[in-house]
Amino acid sequence: MNQLEKVYKHVDDNLDDHIEKMRKLLMQPSISQTGEGVIECAEMLKDWLGGLGCSHIELAKPEFHWPIVYGEYYFAADKTLIVYGMYDVQPVEPDLWRVPPFAGRIVERPPFKKVVMNRGATNTKGPMAALLNALESVQQAAGELPVNILFVFEGEEERGSVSMPGFVRDYEQRLKRADGVYFPIGSQDQNGLAQPMAGSEGILYIELETDGALWGRGPTQFGVHGAMKRILDSPAWRHVKMLSTLVSDDGNTVEVEGWYDEIAVPSEEDLRLLEEGYRKSMPALEVFDPDLLKEVMKVKRFKGDLDDPKEILLEMLFSTSFNLDGIWGGWTGPGTKTFLPHKVTSKHNIRFVPNQTLDGLHGKIRSHLDDHGYGDVELRKLGGYTWALVDHRNPLAEAMYDTFEEFGVKYSINPPVANPIYTSPAWPAYLFAGEPLELPIVGGSLGHGGLAHSPNEYYVIEGCDAKYGRVYGLAGAEKSIASVLFHFAAR
Amino acid sequence: MNQLEKVYKHVDDNLDDHIEKMRKLLMQPSISQTGEGVIECAEMLKDWLGGLGCSHIELAKPEFHWPIVYGEYYFAADKTLIVYGMYDVQPVEPDLWRVPPFAGRIVERPPFKKVVMNRGATNTKGPMAALLNALESVQQAAGELPVNILFVFEGEEERGSVSMPGFVRDYEQRLKRADGVYFPIGSQDQNGLAQPMAGSEGILYIELETDGALWGRGPTQFGVHGAMKRILDSPAWRHVKMLSTLVSDDGNTVEVEGWYDEIAVPSEEDLRLLEEGYRKSMPALEVFDPDLLKEVMKVKRFKGDLDDPKEILLEMLFSTSFNLDGIWGGWTGPGTKTFLPHKVTSKHNIRFVPNQTLDGLHGKIRSHLDDHGYGDVELRKLGGYTWALVDHRNPLAEAMYDTFEEFGVKYSINPPVANPIYTSPAWPAYLFAGEPLELPIVGGSLGHGGLAHSPNEYYVIEGCDAKYGRVYGLAGAEKSIASVLFHFAAR
Repeated sequence: MNQLEKVYKHVDDNLDDHIEKMRKLLMQPSISQTGEGVIECAEMLKDWLGGLGCSHIELAKPEFHWPIVYGEYYFAADKTLIVYGMYDVQPVEPDLWRVPPFAGRIVERPPFKKVVMNRGATNTKGPMAALLNALESVQQAAGELPVNILFVFEGEEERGSVSMPGFVRDYEQRLKRADGVYFPIGSQDQNGLAQPMAGSEGILYIELETDGALWGRGPTQFGVHGAMKRILDSPAWRHVKMLSTLVSDDGNTVEVEGWYDEIAVPSEEDLRLLEEGYRKSMPALEVFDPDLLKEVMKVKRFKGDLDDPKEILLEMLFSTSFNLDGIWGGWTGPGTKTFLPHKVTSKHNIRFVPNQTLDGLHGKIRSHLDDHGYGDVELRKLGGYTWALVDHRNPLAEAMYDTFEEFGVKYSINPPVANPIYTSPAWPAYLFAGEPLELPIVGGSLGHGGLAHSPNEYYVIEGCDAKYGRVYGLAGAEKSIASVLFHFAAR
Repeated sequence: MNQLEKVYKHVDDNLDDHIEKMRKLLMQPSISQTGEGVIECAEMLKDWLGGLGCSHIELAKPEFHWPIVYGEYYFAADKTLIVYGMYDVQPVEPDLWRVPPFAGRIVERPPFKKVVMNRGATNTKGPMAALLNALESVQQAAGELPVNILFVFEGEEERGSVSMPGFVRDYEQRLKRADGVYFPIGSQDQNGLAQPMAGSEGILYIELETDGALWGRGPTQFGVHGAMKRILDSPAWRHVKMLSTLVSDDGNTVEVEGWYDEIAVPSEEDLRLLEEGYRKSMPALEVFDPDLLKEVMKVKRFKGDLDDPKEILLEMLFSTSFNLDGIWGGWTGPGTKTFLPHKVTSKHNIRFVPNQTLDGLHGKIRSHLDDHGYGDVELRKLGGYTWALVDHRNPLAEAMYDTFEEFGVKYSINPPVANPIYTSPAWPAYLFAGEPLELPIVGGSLGHGGLAHSPNEYYVIEGCDAKYGRVYGLAGAEKSIASVLFHFAAR
C-alpha cells in the first residue's frame, strides 16, 4: 500500500467526521457585504490551521474590511504551494431557499442522493473544508505533507478582494518562497467533465450616477412633484440618454471609442488548444454543449444571431462585455406616486481580456462621457482587477492533469485567460500570476457544486455516474486534493 | 349680528375644540397604498357625518379597494352642493420627518407660530376637518345650513380614484340633484395669495416593462451571472434603448408620433385671463414668481433655456409632459454583485391637456413601441383620468371670489384647465365637470398648507401677515368655508 492509498483509505474511514467538519464551517455565516459572522468564521479557520500544526497564524490585513487568514505549514519539503481560498460568501434571500441557508442540510438533489445545501457550499467553503480534511488525512495516514503550504484564505472576495494587493505587497518575502498557487474548487460539471482553472479574465465594476446637483439642472436636493416635469429638466431622462450612448441598439456592442482596440485574443495557440486539446484532455470545442448552457440558464437563444457552437464558445471565452447589472431611481414602490427624481444610479460590470487594461477602459468610459456632454455624470469604480494569462502547461497544472488521469476523469482545458465555462468564478489570479510573484497556478479538484450566488447553492457529498463518467462526491474531492499535492511533489 | 357673524364668533369661541377634532382625524392613519387605518378613518368620518345629522350614510363602493364615505344632509334648502374630499394619504418615511408623522403635533414653522405637522394635514384631511368643524358652527350658531350637502369623501385618491367612475355612475340620480361641487382645500400660498382651483389637467400613469420572457431573448425566468453578458442579450439594455426613443436628447420633447397633434390650449380667453384677471383678481402673470418657485423646489433653473416668466407660466399651465418617475431592475444593493437581470421596469406619469385624450395617448405610446420594434414591451396603465375644463365664472366660483373679497384676500385665477401653480393637486374633476353631471366646480378656502406627499407636511393653525396680506389659520379657513356656502345660497 503506497502513501496515497493509505491517505485514500483514511479519507473513506473518516468520511462522516469530515462531513461534520465541513458542515460546521458552512453553518458559520460569513457574509462580507454585511459582516455577519465573518470574524467568527476567520477564527474557526485559524483554529483549524492551528490543529494542523501551522505556524505564523494570523488574521492579516483587517484594516479595510475583513481579515485574510494566513498560516504556514513550512517544514522540510522541497516544494512549497500557496493554497488560496475565499471564506466569505454572498448574502442570502432565505425566502427563496428550500432549506435554511446556514443549516448545513444534507439533502437529495437528483441525480445526487446527497448534497450539502448551504450558502458557500461550492463557493468556496465546501472545497476549502475538503482541502483541510484531506491534509489531516495525509498527516495521519502518510505522516507528513508532501509539500510546504502557505495558506491564504481571504474574507472579502465578494467585495472585490480589496485587501489582497496590499497583502501580496506586504507578504512578498514570505509568498515568494512558493512554487505555485493552488485554488481548491470543484472542477466537475454535472456531466462529470472536469475543467481546471488557471488564468482569469479582467473585471471592472462601476457605478454611473446622474445627479441634478452636479448637472445644475432639474431637482438638485430631493425629488419634486412629477407635474413639475412641465418646467424642469429631468436627471432621470438624462441618465437614460447617457446610458443609451454606451452600447449599440441591440445592447451587444460597446460604443465607447477605442473599446476594442487592444484586444489580442484568441491567439493561434488558444485556437489550437480549443480544437485539439492537450495531453489526454478533450478539446473544449468538442465538449462544449450550448444546449446544456441554455438549459442551466433557462434561456432560449444566445445574443444576436449567434448559433454556431464555435462562435458561441469564442465569445464566451474571449469577448469583452459591458453589462447593466442594476438600475434604480425615483419612486419604485407600489402605485402611482408622481415624482421627478433628482438622481438615478446604475451598476455595470465589465469583462475584459488581453491587452485591454483596467485603467485604460476606465479612462475610455470617462472620455466617452465627457465627449458626449456628460462631464457631470459621476463614474465610480467599485472594484476590479486585471486578467491573468497562466500557461496551461505549468507544473502545477500538469499535476492536476496527472490526478484527473489517475482517476480516469475526462477533462477539458480552457485557454489561458478563460474561466471555466459554466461557473465563471472570476478571481484575482493576476495577484499571483503577475509581478512580483509570477507563479504557476491551477484551480480544481474532483467534485461538483452549483448555484454559487443563487438560492439553494450546493456541493455534492455522494457522487453518481454521468455522461462523461463519475461525478465525485466529498471523498473523491479530498482524495484528488491529496493526489495533486503528491503529484506536484514528485514532478 | 347677522348669521355669518354669529358663525364666525362660534368658530373663534370653539377653536381649541375644533383643533382637537382635526388632530383626531389626522392622527388616524389612512394610507390607501398599504391599507393602514383606512377603514378606521372611514368609520370616524361616518360617525362625524352622523353627528351632523346626515342621512343615507354609508361606506360605498368598497369592491375595489377602500370605501367612499357618502352621506346626505338634505333638507329644505333651495340649493345643493356636493362636497368632495379625499381622506386617504400617501405613505410616510418616518425617518425623514422632524415629528412622528401621525402624532398630530402642533409645532412652530417660521413664519408660522403654530402649524399642525402630520401626514394628510394639507392633503386633505386638515381642510376636510375644517369644513366639518365649520358646518357644526353653522348649525349651532345659525340654526341651519344654507345649502343641502351631499358628502363624497373618497379613500383611494392616492391610488388613482379607481372607484369614483363607478360611484358617479351608480349614484347619478342622487348626485344630479346638486348645483355644484365644492372641494375644500387651503387656497393660500405662503405669501397670502389665494388661488382657487376649478378644472384639472389630465393624467395618465403607466408602467413600462421589458421582460426577457416576453422578448424571447436574454434571461427569461431569473437573473443570471453578469459574466454571461458575453453571450446573452440584455433586457436591461433593451429597456434603456426603448426608453431613449420616447423623448428628445434633452428629455423635454416627447418623440411619440402625433403626441402634440390635438393640443388646443391656451385659448385667446385663457391668455386674456392670465394678463388681465377677472373681477378683483390679480392677473396670474402679474403674481407669478419664478424665483419663489425655484426656492420652493431648490432648483437653479427651469428646463432648457426657459427664462421668460410668461413662457415659464404658459409651460406650467398648458404643456404636456412625459415624466420618468422611477426605474428599477437587477442588483440594486450594496457592492459589486455581477448580475444580468431578466427584466427592468419604469414608472411614468404623463400630464395632458385639451384636446389630448387618455385613450389616444395610451394608444400612441403603444403604437410607438410597436413601430420601433418593441412590441413585446409591456405597457400597463396604472391609473389616469382626463382633464376638466371648468368655467372660472361659474356661480360657485363666484361665491368663492365673494368670500375672498369679503376677507380682503388677494386672489389670482388660473385658466380653466390649470391647477394651482405651487401645489398642483390633480384630482378627478372631470367626473363632476363632464357628462352626465356637468356641474360647476370650485376648490378652495382661506388657509395654507404645504409639503403634500413630502416629509413634514403641514397645515397652518395660527396665521400671520405676509407679502399679499394675511395668511389665515384654521379659524379663517373655517369661516371662509361657511362664507362660501352662504354666498352661494344667496346668489
